Amino acid sequence: MVETATSPVSQRVRVALLDRIVRGEWAAGTPLPSEASLCREFGTSRGTVRRALAGLRADGVVVGGRGRPPVVGKVVPAQSLDTLRSFTEWARGEGRVPGQRTLVLERRSADSATAGLLGLDEGATVVALVRVRTLEEVPVMLERSTFIPEVGRHLFGFDTDTGSVFAELARQGVALTSARHTIDAVGANRLDSEALRVPMGAPLLRERRRSSDVSGRPVEVADDRFRPEQFSFRVDNAAG
Amino acid sequence: MVETATSPVSQRVRVALLDRIVRGEWAAGTPLPSEASLCREFGTSRGTVRRALAGLRADGVVVGGRGRPPVVGKVVPAQSLDTLRSFTEWARGEGRVPGQRTLVLERRSADSATAGLLGLDEGATVVALVRVRTLEEVPVMLERSTFIPEVGRHLFGFDTDTGSVFAELARQGVALTSARHTIDAVGANRLDSEALRVPMGAPLLRERRRSSDVSGRPVEVADDRFRPEQFSFRVDNAAG
Repeated sequence: MVETATSPVSQRVRVALLDRIVRGEWAAGTPLPSEASLCREFGTSRGTVRRALAGLRADGVVVGGRGRPPVVGKVVPAQSLDTLRSFTEWARGEGRVPGQRTLVLERRSADSATAGLLGLDEGATVVALVRVRTLEEVPVMLERSTFIPEVGRHLFGFDTDTGSVFAELARQGVALTSARHTIDAVGANRLDSEALRVPMGAPLLRERRRSSDVSGRPVEVADDRFRPEQFSFRVDNAAG
Repeated sequence: MVETATSPVSQRVRVALLDRIVRGEWAAGTPLPSEASLCREFGTSRGTVRRALAGLRADGVVVGGRGRPPVVGKVVPAQSLDTLRSFTEWARGEGRVPGQRTLVLERRSADSATAGLLGLDEGATVVALVRVRTLEEVPVMLERSTFIPEVGRHLFGFDTDTGSVFAELARQGVALTSARHTIDAVGANRLDSEALRVPMGAPLLRERRRSSDVSGRPVEVADDRFRPEQFSFRVDNAAG
């Protein structure tokens, strides 16, 4: 959020305009209606509309200098990392429509690195899940998750095409309450390329994650790869 | 950090081993010395050495299942985003040797997006700085920072090849105390490619940032692009 003077009314106007932009009703490059027409629509003063627009401009959602008519900027949804949330929960909070398509759900032998991260012996059985995640049917992320067997077994009684694994595990009494995320970039491999409909080698945002339950026991390791034109991470921080 | 039982002594052994790995003294794939030899070197019990190794294994720094001799894994330095720190400060804290080479330092006219993010009129004068950042002389990141003129002017009296701009600005009384980071991936363009010695289109980790001073005034917008094999971001979080 921006640090300009705001009022509840200008905040309401700002959120209403942002909603149209995020939903794609107003695409990037679309000129915004005139201030006069926004005043009429929202029944507010010109100062209120200007404060709302200043907020959107400071967040980069609206571009165009003060002398020029403002136009809609390019908006990529951003997931805050302040708290641990599932993709489903995040997307719904943004007013988006999350979806998923399962490519793999199977028991397999853990490789050395995965076993080490999960505190298992090499070759131990784990449960692997690979899904394409979508927003409004558009492929946004390819998730590869590996669970310890005591937890992963719950997934065989769940239709992983229907929703959040985190929510399902919570219903089964296994809440994932903390995680360490390692974030970098990677070129798309063949599976990434097919699932996300990008060329081989295209830059993807990668989030590797180890999630633990309330006792601190590692439960899941994951490798999620996102199309950067569809998704970003956001972090707010301050000098320590 | 890992949630195994630790002791100050095993922690000391773990840090000492990690230090050798991070500095490259022990490269990826190097077998670790036997437990017996580590016990002799550190003058500790076998239990202590095992706890140290378990911690390194849980962090993925050491790989190899329990039945096999442990070897050094691939270690990419990770910057925590828990607090706002400069690249220089972060690198020194990791025991690394940061460096920089200035490509551009100039006054220029702000484009529309930059002006909006900095709360300036389009076309206003800003100060642009482009530097290659290195660790032990290896190019790791290309930084493109743009400062409001009242702050950027301090850079013309500072040799930007010698160290941290954040530290210099703090000396000039302009502390950058908070920031919003947007993190995604991008393919290397021509300048990225030349500066970071990667092919055109190679996947880079991108951090865009807007930094503010203690009054909340936006002071800097930046676009930092990292080689993912040399750098990652780390975030620890918990369910809200």
